[in-house]
Amino acid sequence: MEQLSTRHLLGIKDLSPADIQLIFETADNFKDILNRPIKKVPSLRDITIANVFFENSTRTKLSFELAEKRLSADVVNFASASSSVKKGETLIDTVNNILAMKVDMVVMRHSSPGAPHFLSKHIGANIVNAGDGTHEHPTQALLDSFSIREKLGDVAGKKVAIIGDILHSRVALSNIFCLQKLGAEVMVCGPVTLLPKYIADLGVKVEHDVFKALQWCDVANVLRIQLERQQIKYFPSLREYSLFYGINRELLNRLDKEIVIMHPGPINRGVELNSDVADSEHAIILQQVENGVAIRMAVLYLLAGVK
Amino acid sequence: MEQLSTRHLLGIKDLSPADIQLIFETADNFKDILNRPIKKVPSLRDITIANVFFENSTRTKLSFELAEKRLSADVVNFASASSSVKKGETLIDTVNNILAMKVDMVVMRHSSPGAPHFLSKHIGANIVNAGDGTHEHPTQALLDSFSIREKLGDVAGKKVAIIGDILHSRVALSNIFCLQKLGAEVMVCGPVTLLPKYIADLGVKVEHDVFKALQWCDVANVLRIQLERQQIKYFPSLREYSLFYGINRELLNRLDKEIVIMHPGPINRGVELNSDVADSEHAIILQQVENGVAIRMAVLYLLAGVK
Amino acid sequence: MEQLSTRHLLGIKDLSPADIQLIFETADNFKDILNRPIKKVPSLRDITIANVFFENSTRTKLSFELAEKRLSADVVNFASASSSVKKGETLIDTVNNILAMKVDMVVMRHSSPGAPHFLSKHIGANIVNAGDGTHEHPTQALLDSFSIREKLGDVAGKKVAIIGDILHSRVALSNIFCLQKLGAEVMVCGPVTLLPKYIADLGVKVEHDVFKALQWCDVANVLRIQLERQQIKYFPSLREYSLFYGINRELLNRLDKEIVIMHPGPINRGVELNSDVADSEHAIILQQVENGVAIRMAVLYLLAGVK
Repeated sequence: MEQLSTRHLLGIKDLSPADIQLIFETADNFKDILNRPIKKVPSLRDITIANVFFENSTRTKLSFELAEKRLSADVVNFASASSSVKKGETLIDTVNNILAMKVDMVVMRHSSPGAPHFLSKHIGANIVNAGDGTHEHPTQALLDSFSIREKLGDVAGKKVAIIGDILHSRVALSNIFCLQKLGAEVMVCGPVTLLPKYIADLGVKVEHDVFKALQWCDVANVLRIQLERQQIKYFPSLREYSLFYGINRELLNRLDKEIVIMHPGPINRGVELNSDVADSEHAIILQQVENGVAIRMAVLYLLAGVK
Repeated sequence: MEQLSTRHLLGIKDLSPADIQLIFETADNFKDILNRPIKKVPSLRDITIANVFFENSTRTKLSFELAEKRLSADVVNFASASSSVKKGETLIDTVNNILAMKVDMVVMRHSSPGAPHFLSKHIGANIVNAGDGTHEHPTQALLDSFSIREKLGDVAGKKVAIIGDILHSRVALSNIFCLQKLGAEVMVCGPVTLLPKYIADLGVKVEHDVFKALQWCDVANVLRIQLERQQIKYFPSLREYSLFYGINRELLNRLDKEIVIMHPGPINRGVELNSDVADSEHAIILQQVENGVAIRMAVLYLLAGVK
Repeated sequence: MEQLSTRHLLGIKDLSPADIQLIFETADNFKDILNRPIKKVPSLRDITIANVFFENSTRTKLSFELAEKRLSADVVNFASASSSVKKGETLIDTVNNILAMKVDMVVMRHSSPGAPHFLSKHIGANIVNAGDGTHEHPTQALLDSFSIREKLGDVAGKKVAIIGDILHSRVALSNIFCLQKLGAEVMVCGPVTLLPKYIADLGVKVEHDVFKALQWCDVANVLRIQLERQQIKYFPSLREYSLFYGINRELLNRLDKEIVIMHPGPINRGVELNSDVADSEHAIILQQVENGVAIRMAVLYLLAGVK
């Protein structure tokens, strides 16, 4: 069997283009299986996976859990909200305790950038990063590129615009890395206050006019405006954002082409995306969700048991 | 195989008497199996069921979960408390996301009457309503009538009094529908302030004197006084309720017959029901709980895969 | 097959030394299995176990859950935080409801000393006490003694010092009982304010000077200072505690021997234990965690089906 060049999935940064292709080809197989009546395979029957979520993340956790169960792994869930983390324990102690119970793989979500990378130097299990703050969220980026490949045949040579709140996004950075490794051109588009300062160093185009971004791109990946950040004072307000950056059918009709619309969910309908776009045939939002399970099965399958 | 006339279980209202009989006969079989050492059957081995609970409901959820596991289904749980619902997502988007992960059936509890009915028009999976506000809670009504049938041989022709807080009850309406479809006579009994205004339109007898209700009936289904509603100002207080409507052995001794006592749980001992009644041989409260698993297995089994 | 003299594991107090030896020998076998690639055995395939936790306890629950899954039991979790307990239901009603759903064994954590003992007189399932307040926590004591036996060959004749907050500890009492039954000598050591008044009646040595305790013992079981109790006014403060009772390498270097260091977790590094001790080869803290799963598998295996 072909193998990944790494024993953890910490970020897209560590993957070679060949790694990504291997993940995609493996995910192709699992996607086939997910569309059959019998969706379960015995591949990880003797593997125990712990989902260690120091932050809530319903949909990512559900997607991993389904991927794990369809691989026949034994699954245990550990949520920090009701855990010993609160009692003053260190991250390494918490995870080492879980591993001492003979857990083979850890899927981890943490609010601190670098937390899974730090852990990977201290523990023996295979680690999959399910999001470390605004740093990497590699399985989301993989499923996004996989969905573009599925829709357009290939990622190489495509123009992808990532639109919205890049600064607070959990998925923007991994997406940029993944698209670039696969040969796509990447643009980010949003108000100045929602773009990180280091964005120019990443080799992406920067655009503040959403219509120009849409005219340029083949694929628009529209990020979520995080309502829970609205207490923070920054331009723009929700209403202003939706006025200047919200994407609706009327705006798309002014283009001389059709573009693919993506969104990592959950959607704020009427803010960053109108229903006439979100529910159109050019949106592949639910395909992204579906592909997420196949991608996560592929990642877990390829990492399991790699020393 | 015989089939239900519906592909969802949204409410008793949609079921024909033949549907209910089919569910009961299927539940008879599952109840047999639950009393054997090996309680598991492989019937739903390739089905994934999501329990989507927008409201807490420990015992209903536990009963569904056990039913699902004993049918060998794959089970994922989704609780709204820690979910994207909080982030402003619509109900349809939330459920569509879950379904995009290739979930076959959704068991749903929601505080809003009609929520599962609304959903059923927009999604492809089979939906089981596990309670939508004070509207329907069909599996509870089915297990209640199933328990009467088990105890008294038949539901047709029996006199059933539903006693207590009809207005805020999650189970009263479905019970009335189910008992009527099966040919029972139904009376509701409680203080005026705890009866809904539309009650007279439902074809049930209305009684305010609990002793008269008990004299009339073969079966008393005693509802829970919801302690958490006591901040709401309404007559009666807990003490008054227990004085005028609480059922104890002394009261039952004044009848010239024995009646069957039911309660959907959790019981407030000493309020609506005294321990000398709750623990007597005429109470079938724990049988209701036991039958709940068999009824839910039957419902899931009959709906699975129906298009 | 040999059998335990009891059908519940409520406390170490009820176990004979022969019972403990049987649990240890059974755990030896399961520990072997846990170190093989295939960690799962079909032993409890037709048993349903409910984890009923009226108090949060992430690591104990995770350890039981893994033990149950590796025995192939069906597992359901019941957490009181979101449960009918809040709605005024009695403990017996709650558990009887769970049992009516045909659950075979109950693993129970409760804040009230005696809660599982009380229940065991009223219900038919096998009960395993997973901690009842500051009373007993038998599986923790078993895994602690099992870990001493593994490290030192035997428990009999060994000197074990339990150091720290004995008064509020969930594990001290069961440890004292277990060590004594196995023939060890036991000392407790801590400030007067953190020792219970009845301690002298338990047949243990009492010491307030931690260095003298360390000089005396072969094994030091260092308890956690519970940060969450710091609002309660008692001598000592965290700083004082760490100064007078904290164990570090420098202190251990002043001994003329090496002693085994244990800790039930989670560790407050720098308070009761320094990292230079916690991470040393003489600490068997992670072995305790690993052995916990094997001990719990043994207990569940030996109790399952005993009437």
